[in-house]
Amino acid sequence: IKKQNIDANMEAAMEYNPESFGTVQMLYINCSVNGHPVKAFIDSGAQTTIMSEVCAKRCNIMRLVDQRWAGIAKGIGTQKILGRVHMVQLEIEKVFLASSFSILQEQAMDMLLGLDMLKRHQMVIDLQRNVLQIGTTNTSTRFLCDAELPECTRLTQGSDL
Amino acid sequence: IKKQNIDANMEAAMEYNPESFGTVQMLYINCSVNGHPVKAFIDSGAQTTIMSEVCAKRCNIMRLVDQRWAGIAKGIGTQKILGRVHMVQLEIEKVFLASSFSILQEQAMDMLLGLDMLKRHQMVIDLQRNVLQIGTTNTSTRFLCDAELPECTRLTQGSDL
Repeated sequence: IKKQNIDANMEAAMEYNPESFGTVQMLYINCSVNGHPVKAFIDSGAQTTIMSEVCAKRCNIMRLVDQRWAGIAKGIGTQKILGRVHMVQLEIEKVFLASSFSILQEQAMDMLLGLDMLKRHQMVIDLQRNVLQIGTTNTSTRFLCDAELPECTRLTQGSDL
Repeated sequence: IKKQNIDANMEAAMEYNPESFGTVQMLYINCSVNGHPVKAFIDSGAQTTIMSEVCAKRCNIMRLVDQRWAGIAKGIGTQKILGRVHMVQLEIEKVFLASSFSILQEQAMDMLLGLDMLKRHQMVIDLQRNVLQIGTTNTSTRFLCDAELPECTRLTQGSDL
């Protein structure tokens, strides 16, 4: 009987929500940090905006890393935080926002825009219009389509939560 | 000279973005699953909507878990996925949405609303108005304030990314 219930439940889901069995494309936007183009992952579940060491080197901001903020990041396994860049210019659609970054040593993702920045700039993650809107500057930028996503995501997407 | 740059950068940040040194309160909403009240974490960085085994028992939906979808969840350490509930009624502000859940064995958080549901129901995470809006049903619900957050978050918040 349990098996029958489960099968009926799956059939109903397949009929009414067939897309729930597909994979979901994650949210990324184009931006620039210190003049260097970066694809940023939009994560309302992350407390802090972070950047990988590799990306920070490419953006030439490693000289600003304050090692007094070094530590260990939890929640995504355990990673070494090299320090914090307190303020750097983040450009989205030609509008500049001041952003702070925690710099993580080993991190496949270049940059993750976390809830600190999302809240500070009163952003709106709009999945109806498929854009990220920035309340404080009244600009918006569209989420990237599959072909524009960075390599690292496409490799792990299937197995990632 | 490097040290001076970093100090100047920190002073500027403290002057212009003092709130960037505080902790950020995460996003939760009130909802009901199968008639049982649950506080759901809103996470645009998660591909899948999940529920802990403890919470699934409380909501009386363990009988619907399809073990053919069992596996291992990566990305938040490694966790055992017990299976998938294909379709269950999720109530937000008296409006019902069909939702699927992956059930995780060891998970401190009761429920996490991931990008699959956020996209399917054209939701809008609005940090300007501090609400979650559901595009398909045209309803909205406010994000919970600090005193309403579940216990587990308040304990880990400081150290979590």
